[in-house]
Amino acid sequence: MMQTRVIPPAEGAYQYPLLIKRLLLSGSRYEKTREIVYRDQLRYTYPTLSERIARLANVLTAAGVKAGDTVAVMDWDSHRYLEAMFAIPMIGAVVHTVNVRLSPEQILFTMNHADDKLVLVNSDFVGLYQAIAPHLTTVEKTLLLTDGPQKTAELPNLVGEYEQLLAAASPTYDFPDFDENSVATTFYTTGTTGNPKGVYFTHRQLVLHTLSLATVTGSVDSTRFMGTNDVYMPITPMFHVHAWGVPYVATMLGIKQVYPGRYEPDMLVQLWKTEKVSFSHCVPTILQMLLNCKNSQGVDFKGWKIIIGGSSLNRALYEAAKGHGIQLTAAYGMSETCPLISAAHINEELLAGLEDDRTTYRIKAGVPVPLVEPAIIDADGNFLPADGETQGELVLRAPWLTMGYYREPEKGAELWKGGWLHTGDVATLDGNGAIDIRDRIKDVIKTGGEWVSSLELEDLISRHPAVREVAVVGIPDPQWGERPFALLVARDGQGVDARGIKDHLQPFVELGHINKWAIPSQIAVVGEIPKTSVGKLDKKKIRLDIAQWQAENSGVLSSL
Amino acid sequence: MMQTRVIPPAEGAYQYPLLIKRLLLSGSRYEKTREIVYRDQLRYTYPTLSERIARLANVLTAAGVKAGDTVAVMDWDSHRYLEAMFAIPMIGAVVHTVNVRLSPEQILFTMNHADDKLVLVNSDFVGLYQAIAPHLTTVEKTLLLTDGPQKTAELPNLVGEYEQLLAAASPTYDFPDFDENSVATTFYTTGTTGNPKGVYFTHRQLVLHTLSLATVTGSVDSTRFMGTNDVYMPITPMFHVHAWGVPYVATMLGIKQVYPGRYEPDMLVQLWKTEKVSFSHCVPTILQMLLNCKNSQGVDFKGWKIIIGGSSLNRALYEAAKGHGIQLTAAYGMSETCPLISAAHINEELLAGLEDDRTTYRIKAGVPVPLVEPAIIDADGNFLPADGETQGELVLRAPWLTMGYYREPEKGAELWKGGWLHTGDVATLDGNGAIDIRDRIKDVIKTGGEWVSSLELEDLISRHPAVREVAVVGIPDPQWGERPFALLVARDGQGVDARGIKDHLQPFVELGHINKWAIPSQIAVVGEIPKTSVGKLDKKKIRLDIAQWQAENSGVLSSL
Repeated sequence: MMQTRVIPPAEGAYQYPLLIKRLLLSGSRYEKTREIVYRDQLRYTYPTLSERIARLANVLTAAGVKAGDTVAVMDWDSHRYLEAMFAIPMIGAVVHTVNVRLSPEQILFTMNHADDKLVLVNSDFVGLYQAIAPHLTTVEKTLLLTDGPQKTAELPNLVGEYEQLLAAASPTYDFPDFDENSVATTFYTTGTTGNPKGVYFTHRQLVLHTLSLATVTGSVDSTRFMGTNDVYMPITPMFHVHAWGVPYVATMLGIKQVYPGRYEPDMLVQLWKTEKVSFSHCVPTILQMLLNCKNSQGVDFKGWKIIIGGSSLNRALYEAAKGHGIQLTAAYGMSETCPLISAAHINEELLAGLEDDRTTYRIKAGVPVPLVEPAIIDADGNFLPADGETQGELVLRAPWLTMGYYREPEKGAELWKGGWLHTGDVATLDGNGAIDIRDRIKDVIKTGGEWVSSLELEDLISRHPAVREVAVVGIPDPQWGERPFALLVARDGQGVDARGIKDHLQPFVELGHINKWAIPSQIAVVGEIPKTSVGKLDKKKIRLDIAQWQAENSGVLSSL
Repeated sequence: MMQTRVIPPAEGAYQYPLLIKRLLLSGSRYEKTREIVYRDQLRYTYPTLSERIARLANVLTAAGVKAGDTVAVMDWDSHRYLEAMFAIPMIGAVVHTVNVRLSPEQILFTMNHADDKLVLVNSDFVGLYQAIAPHLTTVEKTLLLTDGPQKTAELPNLVGEYEQLLAAASPTYDFPDFDENSVATTFYTTGTTGNPKGVYFTHRQLVLHTLSLATVTGSVDSTRFMGTNDVYMPITPMFHVHAWGVPYVATMLGIKQVYPGRYEPDMLVQLWKTEKVSFSHCVPTILQMLLNCKNSQGVDFKGWKIIIGGSSLNRALYEAAKGHGIQLTAAYGMSETCPLISAAHINEELLAGLEDDRTTYRIKAGVPVPLVEPAIIDADGNFLPADGETQGELVLRAPWLTMGYYREPEKGAELWKGGWLHTGDVATLDGNGAIDIRDRIKDVIKTGGEWVSSLELEDLISRHPAVREVAVVGIPDPQWGERPFALLVARDGQGVDARGIKDHLQPFVELGHINKWAIPSQIAVVGEIPKTSVGKLDKKKIRLDIAQWQAENSGVLSSL
């Protein structure tokens, strides 16, 4: 380490740790009349949020939760979840946001692995919880979360019902200071193989992520990604990378927040209307579902900004949303990155240019936010040029990346090989530092010595007017190594076949966008495409399904 | 310390220090065609800024500057200053921003006290430097900064001229990582007694200050304090609390920056016009000067947002600026606080209310920015209620407060008594946490057992149409302890006398805004009011002047 000048603080000087409790300071100073809304069931203002967080901290402390303990939450998106995301870390404990869409076996694995001590259980998950309870090895107590009249349930070691406990607790709590590198949150990410892996984020990391996210603009027209006058409603579950960290940003800025509970598309549209929602974020498949639901038909969603992440955003969905008045902006990140890494940014040059070029940029991963340092490397770890052409694995440095996988030192070391976090994504970086994700390393299709991006093919195929959804995977081929296979869902009442797709792709070959080897050999029109628990295309499952169909149907479904 | 969960990072995991070099990452990614402009002499884009910083780092390293060394800058506001604010800390050294408006003796004191090793000297200060050079105890080398054709000067141990050295240096530099708690910047603050005191800020503190400042909005209409489409020109010198840290924010966000050199009002107005400046910050006296200069007459500055700090903003100046199309917003901070603590924030309630109420809020110290924790205390250190009424000393916690005074442990401990930074300001906090500065503790006028705020009196008197500037101080009075004394500058061609001021104040007494003891006993109409080196009212000098006048004129100048 270099001999820089480090001066010991004066006697009494307060060395300020970056703790989540500090994110609560400014919201109610800015806008104390703004509301936190839970469906059509509850609404309260910012000062009440602070008070409820103090009450919850008292409830948890009385239930025996201590600094360093893990407290799990099994809930839909709610004001309670928001309160837990503050109160649990603020007493020095760790909040485990349980992915309730995993299988019971996986949920059980994550809860035992995370050492959960107390669990907050929504009444909808009481049955699930009862089924796994006998196998839980560390949980000592439960708290019931309920919207309805029932205030008790057959939960083992039940401390009580959330609202009743809060009502009885003291409204003040003297939140302590501690090491800013203390773990605040944890959750599990499911890979293609092996058990779910636990990522974790410290107080310092979450505060820095919140600050950087709050500076993001998205366009030189100076409107923010999320402005202080926006009304925020998450449509990415709070168990999924803390709803991308946006609840912390909204709270710091004093923005009205609307929590929709379970994601029922018609309910989301209803809340959008009654609460005047103007800012949300979701994965492409949820947006698709939203646009297709009954309440959305014929509705102009003008003024609704939605950030799309989790999977790449294709042009067809972008245009469909635009047709509904929704301004989409793509962003990029992953569970390991807290998650925000980059967001589409329309700069001065693009703003002065063509709408079509702006669209091309808006659907890409975008420009890294402040403090993020990206690079691309080859298979040997050599840095590659940022020329917008050369593809390599995207690696990252930022102040808010998981420092490993919980209790998995080898997987952690693999993630951090060479001192950079390995995303597993193939990307280019252009001269502006804009990231363009080409594919997951494992989803790139290697055919006849060429690399074909499954994402690029999906984007092009999605532009066919009869295609509602598409997934492309590589399947083993004795001659070419791999060949692209496309799975399609047709728009209601529209026919599409292999020939139509080939004719649609041919001009892109002629324009040089793709080479002719990229045209899928096979295509299957299906009713639904398999998704993961967080709504992404489940390519692992798709490959397995295709292998099974091929075995059952001795090969080809629809050859080109 | 509590037993929270702190997990050692995985093997190879990169623990990201908050270093100033990271603030350079995003600007050129966002807007690489944006310019840094120096008067009408030089303009270049963001990628060139990064390159010039690397060149400067090579020049400094070749000149023998090492991590931990202090490098002083004596320059007007320039692109060179901006480059120095990055390059010097980025090599692990400390940049000392010399206050060139201090007396030669004070400058000499600060340079010896700070251990300056190398000095960057603008050709305008060569004479000054030559005069103090024989007494400098630590300086080894000098660099010449010059705008004109002369590329050399009679500077002792001259390494060379800035532009020539940069041109000859390598355009790349591998900036190292080091402890984020390393000191990056230092400068001196002059109190009412004793030698100037050195405050200092670390890399971590400046990065956090930059992030928080970038989130500040100022109004619920979602326009930013400074938006990415703004054009920034400082009118608070860069030697004064690094131009309030705004150059770091502008650079992080990729905003066009205009550096005006020496503050000549007509030149500032010219640059405003040619470069389309839309965001600035200054102290009230500089704004006054700007509005009164030749080039400003009859000009509509529509779209120019100016943040006012350093001294309290009175309503008369607010209205005068508004008459010129300038939107003023007050902010609060001090040298010890990096500086930003709070800024006027027009919330939803105020936006729906009366313009006059918004003005009242816009001229106050405003709402603390994210992460800042304010409190008010009595003389015994007891916390006082935040009721908007109770006055006490404002004390602070924030991640970017100086951790002491350089080599002055006792003064540092005094500053941090009880674990809170003592501002020396008397303030109230209202239910929203908004700060209203009532006075400096030492400027409060204690008359007949009542406390009278000199700031409040100045505000009320400034509303008299014939008053251009006013300062109120307490002067010793055998009967009342102290009595208020007002010093006025009349508007051109307008007469004002004690009777007129008394008549003007009477309604405020009747409305209960002030009590009758607050009406100044004496008044002097003068041509100019003494200012400090940074343009604040110099109340120490004013008190001395008054004492002298009283001695010379045996007392009263103009009694009420």
